[in-house]
Amino acid sequence: MINYPNKKSISIDENKETHSNRGMNFERLINISNEYYITNDIGIIHKKPTPIKVVKVNYQKNQFYSNRHCITEAYYEMASTTDYNGIYKGHHIDFEAKQTKYMTFNVGSNLKQHQLEHLNNVCKHGGIGFILVCFIKVNEIFLVTYDKIVSYCNEKTKSIIPYEFFKKEAYVINSSYLIPVDYMPIVDLIINKEKNVKKEN
Amino acid sequence: MINYPNKKSISIDENKETHSNRGMNFERLINISNEYYITNDIGIIHKKPTPIKVVKVNYQKNQFYSNRHCITEAYYEMASTTDYNGIYKGHHIDFEAKQTKYMTFNVGSNLKQHQLEHLNNVCKHGGIGFILVCFIKVNEIFLVTYDKIVSYCNEKTKSIIPYEFFKKEAYVINSSYLIPVDYMPIVDLIINKEKNVKKEN
Repeated sequence: MINYPNKKSISIDENKETHSNRGMNFERLINISNEYYITNDIGIIHKKPTPIKVVKVNYQKNQFYSNRHCITEAYYEMASTTDYNGIYKGHHIDFEAKQTKYMTFNVGSNLKQHQLEHLNNVCKHGGIGFILVCFIKVNEIFLVTYDKIVSYCNEKTKSIIPYEFFKKEAYVINSSYLIPVDYMPIVDLIINKEKNVKKEN
Repeated sequence: MINYPNKKSISIDENKETHSNRGMNFERLINISNEYYITNDIGIIHKKPTPIKVVKVNYQKNQFYSNRHCITEAYYEMASTTDYNGIYKGHHIDFEAKQTKYMTFNVGSNLKQHQLEHLNNVCKHGGIGFILVCFIKVNEIFLVTYDKIVSYCNEKTKSIIPYEFFKKEAYVINSSYLIPVDYMPIVDLIINKEKNVKKEN
């Protein structure tokens, strides 16, 4: 359960998880947060649509859906980038969101190689790339920067990262009724940290 | 025809245009250019997938496509943002690409209100928002910044912009064999212009 200051709560229940809604609640909470950011002119972050390969379309000219072409055969495609991107205070933001029901986060099974490459490219070109990881068991959401994930995997030569690493190296995301996944204050921290590093150099 | 330095050419032929491939050639040329930018580590710009509302999925467990769920009913949805975005030299880039077979560009029929709002938001938050417009008749591609489009429409209180406006107020995009829609040098110009404006202030 994510505890809200006003005692309301939203549950990301692992028991209710099916193939079709796996990750959907977390995604919806992020979408609600993004809508808040857009409406309140804080930042412009959108979820990218799921890529779908359309094979057959039925042009229903004389039917009820006269202006809507019905796709009758299509297949899900692999995403070539991350799910979310946009702009905040002039900075390009790019991230993926994942949840785990274990007390570990498996980079290998949760992130495709080309998604990691994409995040690497984004960071290299001056953007802020990260992953939001939700640990369902303890209902905690972390923001972990791309470089921290890569450092861990390279150092330990393994891709399964324990919860303790997140406690130590990642940022905890706070929740509120209006912004259930309030990651922007953490992005602020990252921006300020980068500014300080630049000043020192 | 877009003339190439090595005398090769790619045609955006209006006569061959059907409902299904309208705009597709232009889109493909932009995708080729974006791939070049990514491969050569110049910038990371991607086309967002077309949003599709999935209604029915057939889980073909024992069939040929054993690992591919077939979508059997789905509908195209309206895009809430522009088609392209990404990062270049630390700047957030966001644009829409349109072609016209007339010697005018109709903002009202080519861009949805929420797409214009999205571009406005992007610019307000420090990003670079623009539209690539291809005039098929003369095979010229222009990059026009969001603010120029809006200024024209507000000033003239009409949304149909003549070709002459583009000749005067927009930037011509050059084409080469490797980069058929080479808009990045123009983005450079915009970045430098913005820097100079900041210095003057």
